[in-house]
Amino acid sequence: MPVSQSELVRAWRHVLDLSRVNAQETVAILTRQGADARNLAAAQHALADIGAKVFLMEPVLDGRSLRENAVAMHALKSVDMVLDFLGLHHLRTYEQADIMQAGVRILYTVEPPEGMLPLIPCAEDKRRVKAAAQCLKAAKAMHVESDAGTNLDVRVGEYPLLTQWGYSDEPGHWDHWPSTFLATWPNEGSANGTVMLMPGDIVLPLKNYVTSPVKLTIREGYIVDVEGGFDAEYLSDHIASYGDPEAYAVSHLGWGLDPRSRWTTLGTMAKHQTNGNEARAFAGNFMFSTGPNTDAGGKRDTRCHLDIPMRKCSVFLDGVPMTLKGKVIPADQAG
Amino acid sequence: MPVSQSELVRAWRHVLDLSRVNAQETVAILTRQGADARNLAAAQHALADIGAKVFLMEPVLDGRSLRENAVAMHALKSVDMVLDFLGLHHLRTYEQADIMQAGVRILYTVEPPEGMLPLIPCAEDKRRVKAAAQCLKAAKAMHVESDAGTNLDVRVGEYPLLTQWGYSDEPGHWDHWPSTFLATWPNEGSANGTVMLMPGDIVLPLKNYVTSPVKLTIREGYIVDVEGGFDAEYLSDHIASYGDPEAYAVSHLGWGLDPRSRWTTLGTMAKHQTNGNEARAFAGNFMFSTGPNTDAGGKRDTRCHLDIPMRKCSVFLDGVPMTLKGKVIPADQAG
Amino acid sequence: MPVSQSELVRAWRHVLDLSRVNAQETVAILTRQGADARNLAAAQHALADIGAKVFLMEPVLDGRSLRENAVAMHALKSVDMVLDFLGLHHLRTYEQADIMQAGVRILYTVEPPEGMLPLIPCAEDKRRVKAAAQCLKAAKAMHVESDAGTNLDVRVGEYPLLTQWGYSDEPGHWDHWPSTFLATWPNEGSANGTVMLMPGDIVLPLKNYVTSPVKLTIREGYIVDVEGGFDAEYLSDHIASYGDPEAYAVSHLGWGLDPRSRWTTLGTMAKHQTNGNEARAFAGNFMFSTGPNTDAGGKRDTRCHLDIPMRKCSVFLDGVPMTLKGKVIPADQAG
Amino acid sequence: MPVSQSELVRAWRHVLDLSRVNAQETVAILTRQGADARNLAAAQHALADIGAKVFLMEPVLDGRSLRENAVAMHALKSVDMVLDFLGLHHLRTYEQADIMQAGVRILYTVEPPEGMLPLIPCAEDKRRVKAAAQCLKAAKAMHVESDAGTNLDVRVGEYPLLTQWGYSDEPGHWDHWPSTFLATWPNEGSANGTVMLMPGDIVLPLKNYVTSPVKLTIREGYIVDVEGGFDAEYLSDHIASYGDPEAYAVSHLGWGLDPRSRWTTLGTMAKHQTNGNEARAFAGNFMFSTGPNTDAGGKRDTRCHLDIPMRKCSVFLDGVPMTLKGKVIPADQAG
Amino acid sequence: MPVSQSELVRAWRHVLDLSRVNAQETVAILTRQGADARNLAAAQHALADIGAKVFLMEPVLDGRSLRENAVAMHALKSVDMVLDFLGLHHLRTYEQADIMQAGVRILYTVEPPEGMLPLIPCAEDKRRVKAAAQCLKAAKAMHVESDAGTNLDVRVGEYPLLTQWGYSDEPGHWDHWPSTFLATWPNEGSANGTVMLMPGDIVLPLKNYVTSPVKLTIREGYIVDVEGGFDAEYLSDHIASYGDPEAYAVSHLGWGLDPRSRWTTLGTMAKHQTNGNEARAFAGNFMFSTGPNTDAGGKRDTRCHLDIPMRKCSVFLDGVPMTLKGKVIPADQAG
Amino acid sequence: MPVSQSELVRAWRHVLDLSRVNAQETVAILTRQGADARNLAAAQHALADIGAKVFLMEPVLDGRSLRENAVAMHALKSVDMVLDFLGLHHLRTYEQADIMQAGVRILYTVEPPEGMLPLIPCAEDKRRVKAAAQCLKAAKAMHVESDAGTNLDVRVGEYPLLTQWGYSDEPGHWDHWPSTFLATWPNEGSANGTVMLMPGDIVLPLKNYVTSPVKLTIREGYIVDVEGGFDAEYLSDHIASYGDPEAYAVSHLGWGLDPRSRWTTLGTMAKHQTNGNEARAFAGNFMFSTGPNTDAGGKRDTRCHLDIPMRKCSVFLDGVPMTLKGKVIPADQAG
Repeated sequence: MPVSQSELVRAWRHVLDLSRVNAQETVAILTRQGADARNLAAAQHALADIGAKVFLMEPVLDGRSLRENAVAMHALKSVDMVLDFLGLHHLRTYEQADIMQAGVRILYTVEPPEGMLPLIPCAEDKRRVKAAAQCLKAAKAMHVESDAGTNLDVRVGEYPLLTQWGYSDEPGHWDHWPSTFLATWPNEGSANGTVMLMPGDIVLPLKNYVTSPVKLTIREGYIVDVEGGFDAEYLSDHIASYGDPEAYAVSHLGWGLDPRSRWTTLGTMAKHQTNGNEARAFAGNFMFSTGPNTDAGGKRDTRCHLDIPMRKCSVFLDGVPMTLKGKVIPADQAG
Repeated sequence: MPVSQSELVRAWRHVLDLSRVNAQETVAILTRQGADARNLAAAQHALADIGAKVFLMEPVLDGRSLRENAVAMHALKSVDMVLDFLGLHHLRTYEQADIMQAGVRILYTVEPPEGMLPLIPCAEDKRRVKAAAQCLKAAKAMHVESDAGTNLDVRVGEYPLLTQWGYSDEPGHWDHWPSTFLATWPNEGSANGTVMLMPGDIVLPLKNYVTSPVKLTIREGYIVDVEGGFDAEYLSDHIASYGDPEAYAVSHLGWGLDPRSRWTTLGTMAKHQTNGNEARAFAGNFMFSTGPNTDAGGKRDTRCHLDIPMRKCSVFLDGVPMTLKGKVIPADQAG
Repeated sequence: MPVSQSELVRAWRHVLDLSRVNAQETVAILTRQGADARNLAAAQHALADIGAKVFLMEPVLDGRSLRENAVAMHALKSVDMVLDFLGLHHLRTYEQADIMQAGVRILYTVEPPEGMLPLIPCAEDKRRVKAAAQCLKAAKAMHVESDAGTNLDVRVGEYPLLTQWGYSDEPGHWDHWPSTFLATWPNEGSANGTVMLMPGDIVLPLKNYVTSPVKLTIREGYIVDVEGGFDAEYLSDHIASYGDPEAYAVSHLGWGLDPRSRWTTLGTMAKHQTNGNEARAFAGNFMFSTGPNTDAGGKRDTRCHLDIPMRKCSVFLDGVPMTLKGKVIPADQAG
Repeated sequence: MPVSQSELVRAWRHVLDLSRVNAQETVAILTRQGADARNLAAAQHALADIGAKVFLMEPVLDGRSLRENAVAMHALKSVDMVLDFLGLHHLRTYEQADIMQAGVRILYTVEPPEGMLPLIPCAEDKRRVKAAAQCLKAAKAMHVESDAGTNLDVRVGEYPLLTQWGYSDEPGHWDHWPSTFLATWPNEGSANGTVMLMPGDIVLPLKNYVTSPVKLTIREGYIVDVEGGFDAEYLSDHIASYGDPEAYAVSHLGWGLDPRSRWTTLGTMAKHQTNGNEARAFAGNFMFSTGPNTDAGGKRDTRCHLDIPMRKCSVFLDGVPMTLKGKVIPADQAG
Repeated sequence: MPVSQSELVRAWRHVLDLSRVNAQETVAILTRQGADARNLAAAQHALADIGAKVFLMEPVLDGRSLRENAVAMHALKSVDMVLDFLGLHHLRTYEQADIMQAGVRILYTVEPPEGMLPLIPCAEDKRRVKAAAQCLKAAKAMHVESDAGTNLDVRVGEYPLLTQWGYSDEPGHWDHWPSTFLATWPNEGSANGTVMLMPGDIVLPLKNYVTSPVKLTIREGYIVDVEGGFDAEYLSDHIASYGDPEAYAVSHLGWGLDPRSRWTTLGTMAKHQTNGNEARAFAGNFMFSTGPNTDAGGKRDTRCHLDIPMRKCSVFLDGVPMTLKGKVIPADQAG
Repeated sequence: MPVSQSELVRAWRHVLDLSRVNAQETVAILTRQGADARNLAAAQHALADIGAKVFLMEPVLDGRSLRENAVAMHALKSVDMVLDFLGLHHLRTYEQADIMQAGVRILYTVEPPEGMLPLIPCAEDKRRVKAAAQCLKAAKAMHVESDAGTNLDVRVGEYPLLTQWGYSDEPGHWDHWPSTFLATWPNEGSANGTVMLMPGDIVLPLKNYVTSPVKLTIREGYIVDVEGGFDAEYLSDHIASYGDPEAYAVSHLGWGLDPRSRWTTLGTMAKHQTNGNEARAFAGNFMFSTGPNTDAGGKRDTRCHLDIPMRKCSVFLDGVPMTLKGKVIPADQAG
């Protein structure tokens, strides 16, 4: 059954209220040709009911970067909140970081309403992520292992955390509805070991389940070998096609904290019907990522970015288990 | 025959080139729900071909004024040019004046493509308006008369000129495609006499031809009497419905300079198919207006504004004829 | 400026609340191909927010009458309220009367949102109509006159009243948003005299202003003569084209009670942009109608129905003025 | 009530059957951007049910004439029938004449379905037109007069007849659904006298009723004087705006033969809702036309073409009345 | 090539004629936002051509069940036939059973026209299903086996049959275009054995081919173990995600009888392009199902329902083969 | 990010310029219901800017072949170029061959703009294909082998070459944007050996990656055995479902020459988002095909046509390597 517009407006109102939007605030709806029309209408409707000062902005890019458009950038940095229907992080020219640094709250959405309504965020989601963030912030080392053969060690602390709970209620916070997970980037050159992808692990944005084991060998922060069958070849050729050595870097590492999200959902949809964010958030996943660290303030700018939520892994911080074989362990992180 | 998109993009390119838009400039396309989709697409297309830095901005008003939205206003005042598909002058809260004062060029369009393509502006249009503006700027007194009984005297010079030639190529200039005419506001309290509307004269924005004589008596800048039959009653009740004494004020006065525009065109269309701007511009009209002078920097802010292009009038500046019985006289103003 | 969906939903919620719809009630949205999509969506949205039990019903007629469809008729008679986007009264086969007699509240809308938002009904509108209804219910005779020559006498009391205030909050009540007026049908054969249509009087559903005097001679309940120029001929030929003697009958007679409605509004729109209901309601009009009385339970079933709101008439009930020269007189009826 | 697609397909099937389309024939649907989508779909549907060989053709003109496109022209001349949704006669470059001369049947439609369904043609329509055509073909002189002052004499026989009955069932026949009338062009230079337009007469394609008398003086085939009030001025300026002496020529003259068509219908619609063809066909009208005679094989090619259906005229052929004061006289022509 | 509307209307007419719809009957088209517009239009068109009494009904649910809407339910139970574009069986609140028990014929469609046209049902399809039904109705035991290891025994007779042939021509019969198969539910607790899913077997509504063997162990009517690789885990986690022990129950069991349907078709489409009903019907499949039996009048109401058409199985009724290794055996069931 | 219309028009202009379209030429845009609207508009726009003589032609087939429509066929054979949005080669009734034989250039497109913009053809693409064509034209024997077990020998020379470089600049040349590859058909009965499909090889138009080895045994031009697991069964049943022995014939054989195309792209899209032409072109593939040879002038007309781009093969012509293990060897063919 498709979502009705009345339900959708109520959901947006809930998320905007959680995001503390009020009648004194100014909100920019950043959009593009082809953005989801139902969500755009519902967000405007909810904002009008709140009484906020609102404008839609749609950059006409066609070969120019948004960054070059100083007037548009200044406006986006001057509002209280940006509802991002454009996908600032796809632009790769630091617009998103600039806007966040200006203290603007950003909420990104790209799933269709049918993917958002079952996963409306709540304050409890944030509480769980914050509890996990306390552990991650304090940690020096992350160790990940699995019966399948994953055995990865990284040192952490050099880079900030990436924390997402589905709404954006803090200045300079970027979030994405739906999503409930956290991660950080390994200290430069500190990642070493083996990551063993197994059937059912998910490669995003490709939206594919791995169907045969893939062995990734990691040395000093980079994937140095990809072994296995079809999936290994596919992954290897996909990364190679960018022609960029930085595409092999280990990017953010973390775990999912949403008990409502399911790794099986992706398998029920055509690729264009989802962006796969539910897969990034299912409780107890270990999400291994590759490529850029510019979102973390780093200088590794590569267009190839993979998020790989993995099942059945155990994640330890300084020896303390956050997940064991795909189950969240600390009581204050479990749903 | 409807206009093709290829023709429309070429026409927009021509007008934007006349407006001196280039790849170094930033252009805001200010729009609203229901704006003409073909024009919006064509303007974006032409701007992308020019390589300008462009964004669409659509304010979500729903009871709030655009002026309250300081971020949006700052952005609009910071660009080089605004393509106005929203109708800033309908907002009545000085947004347009603010943007013009910031030196921004504004080009307003509201007609559908079928009304714009026959009246693509050219440099010659500007030359004629500028020639007339030289006369009007130097003038102290305007006298208007007609065989039908119009006999109006005003002093001029207190307020600036309103000059339109269909494109916007000067900083702070507002224009409207299509349109070729000029006007100014009478000195406060200086308008006295009689304006006799005759069948075929046009009342905008009502988009009606007057069908019976209407005698307007003017005293010290205000209409003090409306006499006649059905048309007089209609006009009188329409103005009275605003419940605002300033609605009776004489507003800008001027004459049309476009030899391609025809007073008969309005009679061939349904009201929603045109905004009637061709009627404001037909060569040799005398346009009598009522209501606000805020566009001229005055303080008369009333929501009732009528433009009444009249036929067969003679307009004199300090005794020199600009038009005689509806024909443009100075050689450098005639087409 | 077009109406935004958030404004429209709020307006519908207001009118549905005035109409006493609640979560225990069942509401049928009766619709057709081509009904206004924005109003349909807004009504559904507001009803979903109320939590009512709701279904849309769209009969597929194509040559069959709705009356033949007993299942659909039973459903419409079983709900608490029908939102009529179809126009039951155009079907002319007593569906509307049947549904009303079953105690169902009906609210008809046909204007686009831009015609409805300026005229959102309020409890005060009902109060004024009810005050007038008390007078009309008690009256034996209605006399109408004007300086232009109208001089009409009818006896009343045989038929029920038609009262409209823009929402439907009483069982079996039919209403239309927007509208604020009342009327009744003359006793059979009792109408005699002259009705003199003058320029500015409005003929609906033709949506034309009369532009030359038309003299209608009434004898024993029927128009027996139509004299005048073009307008008289047009009206006469229009009625004659139905080939039905009952088309000449005098139908309901009454007066408008909405101080916000204006007789001039019709003149600012293309015919397809309005249904003209504002003209039926402007305060102080005398609305002369021709044709059927089936809505009143009578047997006069003719397809030709004209509503002619007239200006500057004086309406007396048993000698007491309700309006004088187009102004509402009783203090409790005036806005 | 809008027309349903099932009704519309049945109506098209009826008209195509009357037009003798069968499964052995090839039909071109000539169309353009913005043609009525419901009619296009219904025509295709009915043709597919018939089993004809069908293609849509949409020329991309944008400044080029269709005539230059020899391939497209050859195709149109090679089919059995063209359904013209483009309006070949508006192209003014003889494409229509060429296609007709190739023996192709053409059926033009431009009204929306709501204007076509009430006027579905039948064989009886053709019979009446053919009866009238027999008279017109045999005639040497046409005389037209009216109480209002029309007094026009022309000689006929030099040019062919224009006969329309709403479907196209003869090789090389052009027709238009809806329409039932006939006409011919006066012998060159033979038209002399006065045509007196009166209120209620209709000027097409302007879609206006004349509201004040207009006296046209005709000398040797041309209008040499236009006298009267606003309508005269409007008409005069409209014709003058083409800047073409041939625009003053008398064009085809004839009378309407459709008893279902009404001169009042035009007054109930916005201008964009109709093309006014019902007005051309109402029984007993005298249609006076101006401008080109290229459709008749003549060389008078002017872009200004007016059709003016007039009421209350008497048309005589060699002294025999075809109509008297707007009524069709010969029994075999009356409906 | 997309299906043309003329083809689609003809196909609907054929299926409605097979379903014995006639001009005396009343048909409800039950629909929802997002239902296939081409099918909706075609069904209305065909019904209008038949002359049936028809209405569309679209419930506005938004959190309320259709069952609560007594007026809508009464209407649906009062018609002769419901064309179900809503998916009554997804509501899970017995609306469908109620309507069937009232003797109403229901025809469900959810595939797009491209999936329906190649599989237009015919009387022969019904004949084959009826022949099989005679066997199934008489049977006491069903045994299913395969070389891959399936070995399942169930007793039958407690529950009614589910028979589908693509149209609905019997009172109270539910059908689905396209589909040709039959099934029944095992007697409570009687299912025991092993079901071995092999690559190429299809899991619906997931629309996935099994790619690795999955061993399901069945004890007393429930799946008690799921063994295998990725597919087993996926299936197991999918069922577990409903958190409902009844999700493990064995549901209806039967075999496909459509010789035109192919198990390979699903692999050629994106998931959103099909509902997979062709896979349920291919001749000789054994369809194993899990979850609810409410459609059979049972009380097992779980939201998790899987249909798993399997290849290469042999189905025996009381020892008599219906299929052997995926081939239909009885001559009167084979196509 | 979706492609903007301005980019798309520029791309089409580039490809049409490469295709040597000019203002003297006539171009037919052959289209169908559901063709990509953005590409249709962009192609028209670019052609209008070029000034060519252009028409769209959309056959209404509904059960009739285009070939039967002699008028349409004559038109298509008479133009200089056909832009094929219909897919002539899907018609299987020799229309395409006829049009090519008439010397008409054909450019087929079916991918959405997002699949075309990254692969805009250039003159260099043609140069590489022409270099390869010189080798293929001169060759007598083709041998293909792979480590996985492919070992195929065919004789060539009996049939013409199929060469594609993404635009159509030679009379009678058919091309497809995007595509850069070449092939020819084996001499009748000359194909013998083994083709071993391996995971990652792609089956079109099914748009599936092979996931398990499939061994095809070829004897005297036909596949005589298909061995393997699920993929083998799927392929085998798919071919068998056509019930046509000619479906097993070996069709064209060749290799890909586009260094920008990637075999991994197909795995990132839903099936309906691409036609898979990028897979046909990736540099170094060996494309094995089955089914018809009518495009080559042969008489083998079967509806089952598979294109199977394979990785890691070595293709030799008369012993000279064109590719070795999936890499293009001749310097003038490599990108």
